[in-house]
Amino acid sequence: GVDIGGFGGLYPIGGDRYLVSGTDGVGTKLKVAFEVGKHDTIGVDLVAMSVNDIVTLGAKPLFFLDYFATSRLDVDKAEQVVKGIIDGCKGSDCVLLGGETAEMPGFYEEGEYDLSGFAVGIVDKADVIDGKGIRVGDKLVGLPSSGVHSNGFSLARKVLQVSDLSFGSPAPFGDGRETMGEVLLEPTKLYVRDVLRLHTGLKLRVKGAVHVTGGGFYDNIPRCLPDGVGVKIYKGSWNVLPIFNWMQDVGQIAEEEMYRTFNMGVGFIMVMSPEDAEEALKECKDASIIGEVAREEGVAFA
Amino acid sequence: GVDIGGFGGLYPIGGDRYLVSGTDGVGTKLKVAFEVGKHDTIGVDLVAMSVNDIVTLGAKPLFFLDYFATSRLDVDKAEQVVKGIIDGCKGSDCVLLGGETAEMPGFYEEGEYDLSGFAVGIVDKADVIDGKGIRVGDKLVGLPSSGVHSNGFSLARKVLQVSDLSFGSPAPFGDGRETMGEVLLEPTKLYVRDVLRLHTGLKLRVKGAVHVTGGGFYDNIPRCLPDGVGVKIYKGSWNVLPIFNWMQDVGQIAEEEMYRTFNMGVGFIMVMSPEDAEEALKECKDASIIGEVAREEGVAFA
Repeated sequence: GVDIGGFGGLYPIGGDRYLVSGTDGVGTKLKVAFEVGKHDTIGVDLVAMSVNDIVTLGAKPLFFLDYFATSRLDVDKAEQVVKGIIDGCKGSDCVLLGGETAEMPGFYEEGEYDLSGFAVGIVDKADVIDGKGIRVGDKLVGLPSSGVHSNGFSLARKVLQVSDLSFGSPAPFGDGRETMGEVLLEPTKLYVRDVLRLHTGLKLRVKGAVHVTGGGFYDNIPRCLPDGVGVKIYKGSWNVLPIFNWMQDVGQIAEEEMYRTFNMGVGFIMVMSPEDAEEALKECKDASIIGEVAREEGVAFA
Repeated sequence: GVDIGGFGGLYPIGGDRYLVSGTDGVGTKLKVAFEVGKHDTIGVDLVAMSVNDIVTLGAKPLFFLDYFATSRLDVDKAEQVVKGIIDGCKGSDCVLLGGETAEMPGFYEEGEYDLSGFAVGIVDKADVIDGKGIRVGDKLVGLPSSGVHSNGFSLARKVLQVSDLSFGSPAPFGDGRETMGEVLLEPTKLYVRDVLRLHTGLKLRVKGAVHVTGGGFYDNIPRCLPDGVGVKIYKGSWNVLPIFNWMQDVGQIAEEEMYRTFNMGVGFIMVMSPEDAEEALKECKDASIIGEVAREEGVAFA
């Protein structure tokens, strides 16, 4: 294994190619699925958590496997979960190669389950995204998130508890047609196609890539950067989703904690030269330039 | 993905090679680890469950990833688990490429955790073990198990409950130095080296291979066979481990249920021509011929 300090592991496979592998679960977002009783999109989250990780290294996901553990198998529920997994695999152009359903009496509460997923991708050595070419002045191209994605749910559930809303309440933002449960369960976006189209398809070079997961902006962005540089984030350069404004307001959460916990509307970030970044915006209509590489280490806002 | 009805999934990788991947957990053997308070070998079981599966297809394991989920992380316990995982990877000559530690409040009982593992291996097309060449008269070469391995623990724990023994009691068989907990926690054997040495190293062709897991002889052996044939098992041709005799006796379990639940002392089975089987016995001193391929479908004993 080759450790380049990123979001996945690289394994040389010969012919100047690497296998890249990542594993993850969906954390306590599952509790929301249990409470809302909706199980057909949590599988999309599961796939997204792993494939968005391995595409940060430039890898094209080849296949995915899932592990589903529960105390007593509910076939209907398991089928809904698998439907979401299949949707996630289709949406990231990889194959559901296998999986394991584990029945473990006494491990999980009645009606509950845990999920983990595992993705394997492949990348040519020349296409590995490793942050090495990153220079001060490079741009941060942000791709929008669909919502809370699959991190920060302990905090999100706490905020809902202190509010006067429940999962079934209409969201007090947007057109009011969605319930809070639906807003929170909105599946994680799959960034594989966009990133690979730009990076390996159009050869707009992605020098560094960030899947904005647990730890938000502060913990994730520095993982793609070489030593000695940081980033300046342009506040107001993208749409912070209403769910985040609502949580910050109702939960009286400090701005910094918000950016350390949530994706704030930006689920994936690509570091590119200013020229390539401009081209990328033409190709990805919903992308925006959300910041730049700066001389000062760390994550600053301007 | 190519489904050949085996224990893992195959993915063509070019150059007439396939990636093979498998995922599994260790089931309720974890409960024994919790109750005995011993966490440094369950990781061997975790690795073994996946790598023994993918070697049934002839694949050499390349790397492994683990998923460790708990309600509140106990760093010491997690380190012991990882120690076992590293031992399992070393013992099957693969790399621990990554992993995920998930803290999920409210999912697991205090002090408990769940584990899943994922292995990826590689096999040349010409070396894929697919059962196609199996003929009536071929021999079943059995490799000994080290104990209960990682299946049948619901039944094993029930038997211990109805007995007058506890996990701390000296085992009423063997030299009495081991406790029942130690006997039950004996880690799953890793069959990767033996199988690959015979099959790809010495070119003693393994035509079909069986990892004897949940479902025991009855459910697992037929998975490696082509249609229209079965097997005859030679009773008494190997050492049934004392733990199985003890469980059958104390639990008053029917013979058939024993062979449908446990490995009975044979953890891995290779189907080989009579000539190759003879050679294999010379190479693997602890192997024995435990049966043959027969004209009648199903698993019969003689």
